[in-house]
Amino acid sequence: MRKPLIIDCHGHYTTAPAALEEWRKRQIANLNTPALGPKPSELRISDDELRESIEANQLRLMRARGSDLTIFSPRASFMAHHIGDLETSKTWAAICNELCYRVSQLFPDHFIGAAMLPQSPGADPATSIPELERCVREYGMVGINLNPDPSGGHWTSPPLSDRHWYPLYEKMVELDIPAMVHVSTSCNPCFHTTGAHYLNADTTAFMQCLTSDLFKDFPTLKFLIPHGGGAVPYHWGRFRGLAQEMKKPPLSEHLLNNIFFDTCVYHQPGIDLLTNVIPVKNVLFASEMIGAVRGIDPETGHYYDDTRRYIEAADIGDEDRFRIFEGNARHVYPRLDALLTRKGF
Amino acid sequence: MRKPLIIDCHGHYTTAPAALEEWRKRQIANLNTPALGPKPSELRISDDELRESIEANQLRLMRARGSDLTIFSPRASFMAHHIGDLETSKTWAAICNELCYRVSQLFPDHFIGAAMLPQSPGADPATSIPELERCVREYGMVGINLNPDPSGGHWTSPPLSDRHWYPLYEKMVELDIPAMVHVSTSCNPCFHTTGAHYLNADTTAFMQCLTSDLFKDFPTLKFLIPHGGGAVPYHWGRFRGLAQEMKKPPLSEHLLNNIFFDTCVYHQPGIDLLTNVIPVKNVLFASEMIGAVRGIDPETGHYYDDTRRYIEAADIGDEDRFRIFEGNARHVYPRLDALLTRKGF
Repeated sequence: MRKPLIIDCHGHYTTAPAALEEWRKRQIANLNTPALGPKPSELRISDDELRESIEANQLRLMRARGSDLTIFSPRASFMAHHIGDLETSKTWAAICNELCYRVSQLFPDHFIGAAMLPQSPGADPATSIPELERCVREYGMVGINLNPDPSGGHWTSPPLSDRHWYPLYEKMVELDIPAMVHVSTSCNPCFHTTGAHYLNADTTAFMQCLTSDLFKDFPTLKFLIPHGGGAVPYHWGRFRGLAQEMKKPPLSEHLLNNIFFDTCVYHQPGIDLLTNVIPVKNVLFASEMIGAVRGIDPETGHYYDDTRRYIEAADIGDEDRFRIFEGNARHVYPRLDALLTRKGF
Repeated sequence: MRKPLIIDCHGHYTTAPAALEEWRKRQIANLNTPALGPKPSELRISDDELRESIEANQLRLMRARGSDLTIFSPRASFMAHHIGDLETSKTWAAICNELCYRVSQLFPDHFIGAAMLPQSPGADPATSIPELERCVREYGMVGINLNPDPSGGHWTSPPLSDRHWYPLYEKMVELDIPAMVHVSTSCNPCFHTTGAHYLNADTTAFMQCLTSDLFKDFPTLKFLIPHGGGAVPYHWGRFRGLAQEMKKPPLSEHLLNNIFFDTCVYHQPGIDLLTNVIPVKNVLFASEMIGAVRGIDPETGHYYDDTRRYIEAADIGDEDRFRIFEGNARHVYPRLDALLTRKGF
C-alpha cells in the first residue's frame, strides 16, 4: 500500500495580512453608512504578502508535520455573520473567499479552497447560493462552511433539519460538495467562542440530524462535524440510546452515511476514543492549524494541534490510517478526489 | 479496605405520581390568572403513592444494580424555570422539593435530598436563597441544582463567573453545600433537551469557570458538572491549551479543587476516557437513573445508564473505585458526609 497523502480537511486562513482586518474594521464602522465605504477594491494585498503569510505559518508547519494538502477556508471566527446585514456578509464573504482562492492558486499543491457563505440572521439561506456557485465553479472550491447559528450564540435560526435550509442542500447535492458545520464568533457572553460555542454547535448539529429524517430527503448530503464531533463520540452510548428511544434506525444507518467527524481533538486519549468508537470510515484527518490552541503541550513537548502524531500513535492499522489521512477525504469531497485523480494521485 | 457505599450523586424524581404533572399543567394554564389556582394544598399525594413510585422504579433498579444511596432532586426537565415568573417558580420549587424530602423520609437509608431553586429569567439569584435555606435547614438537603440558563436555551443570564450569582455562592459557602450545574428543558427548537442542551450547558459552565477567577473569590465553592462534564474530558487537551494561552494556572490548580464531574456517560469507552483523563479525585459516581436514556444497549445487553458496570470494568484500582463510589461524594457533599458519619459509616 502506498503512503497516504496527508489531507488536512480543516484549515482556516487565520494568518491573513493585517490589511484584511483593517478593511473589516472600516466596514463595521460604516455599517449604518455603507456608502462611506470601504469598497472591496480598497483592499489591496499583494501576492507576495499572501505568500509570506502562508509560507511563514501554515506551510511551514505543514512541512514540519508532514501534511501535504489543506482544505482552506476563511477564518471561522471572523465570518461573524451576526454583524450587519445580508449585504455586509455578501461583501465580506466575497473578499475572504477570494483570498483563499488566491492562496490555492499560489500553492496549488498544498491548498484547495472551501467557501464561507454570506449568511446573515434571518436571511433565507438561498441568498448564499450565488456566492457558493461562484466559489465552486470559478474558484474550484470543494466544500463550504455552513453556520447553523448566524446569530452568533443566540440560536435564532431553525434547526438544520428544517426546510428553511433545503434550497442550500439542493445546491450542495447538485454540485456534489459537503458542508463543514462550523459556527463563528459568539457574541453571547455565556459562550466562549472556541471553548464552548464551537463544541456546543457540533453537538447541537448532530442532534438536530438525529431527531430528524433529513438524510431520507437528501441521501447524498454530507456534513462534516468539526472538533471531533463536539461531545458526540464521548457520549456515543447516550446518542445510540436516545435514537433507540425515538425508534430511529441504528446510528450507523440513520446518520453515518452522511455525517463525518474530523480529528481536531488535541490529546491522545480523545483521538483514541474517537477512532475506537466511531467507524473509521467516518473520521477525517484535520488539525485546524493555526487555530484556537497554538501552544505546546507540556505533557508531550509537542503542539496540541499536531494531530497527526495522535493518529500515528492510535491503535489502528495502516489501512485505517490511510482512510483517515486520505481516503475518507476523497470520499467526502468528490471534487477534491477528481482533482487529485487528474493530478495522478 | 471495606466495600464502598455506592452513592449515586445524580438522581431525579422522574417517576413522581401523575398528580404532580396535573397540578403543574393547571398552574401553567393559569399563569396569567394565578388567583384561579391551583393552590399548593390542592396537590394531594399520599405516602403510599410516593412509596410505590419509588419502590417500583428507582429503588428496584438500585437494588438490582447494587447501589445504596441516591442524592435525589426534582426532575430536571420539569424545573422549566422559563415558565411564568418568579412566583410561579417559587411555588413549583417548594412543591417539588417537598416531595423529594418526603421520599428521603420514607426511605432514609436510600435517598437524601438535593434542592431545585426557584430561578426565573431575569430574577436576582438571591431570591432563591430562602428556599435553599429551607431545604437545607428544615429538609436536611445536602446540595442544590443550579441552572445556569433559566431561560431554557436562550442563555440570557450572565455567565456563572459574574457577580450576579455571588449572593447564592456566599450562601452555598456558608451552608457548605455544592451545586450540580444542571439546566432544564430547552424551549429553543435548536437544542434537543437531553441530547444537546444538557451537554452544551456542561461544557459552557466549565468554560465560564475556566476564563474567570471565580474560585479565587470562592476557594471552597464546589460545582459538580453532570453528564461526565459534557464535552470537557474528551477535549481535555483543548481546555488545557486554552487555559495556557490565557496564562491561567494548570487546570489542576485553576479548577480541579472546585469542579467535579459525574459518571453519567453511557458506554464503556466514555467512562474509560473520563477515568483516564480526569484525576480520580474529581469523579463522582452517578447514573441519572431513571432518566434520559432508559433502554438496554444491544451491544452489551445491559441498561445504558447502568454506569456502575462501566466503573467496575474500568482499568483503575480498588482505592480509586472507592473514591468514585463513596469517598469523593463525601468530600463534595460535607453534609452528606456528616450524616453518614452519624450513622456509623
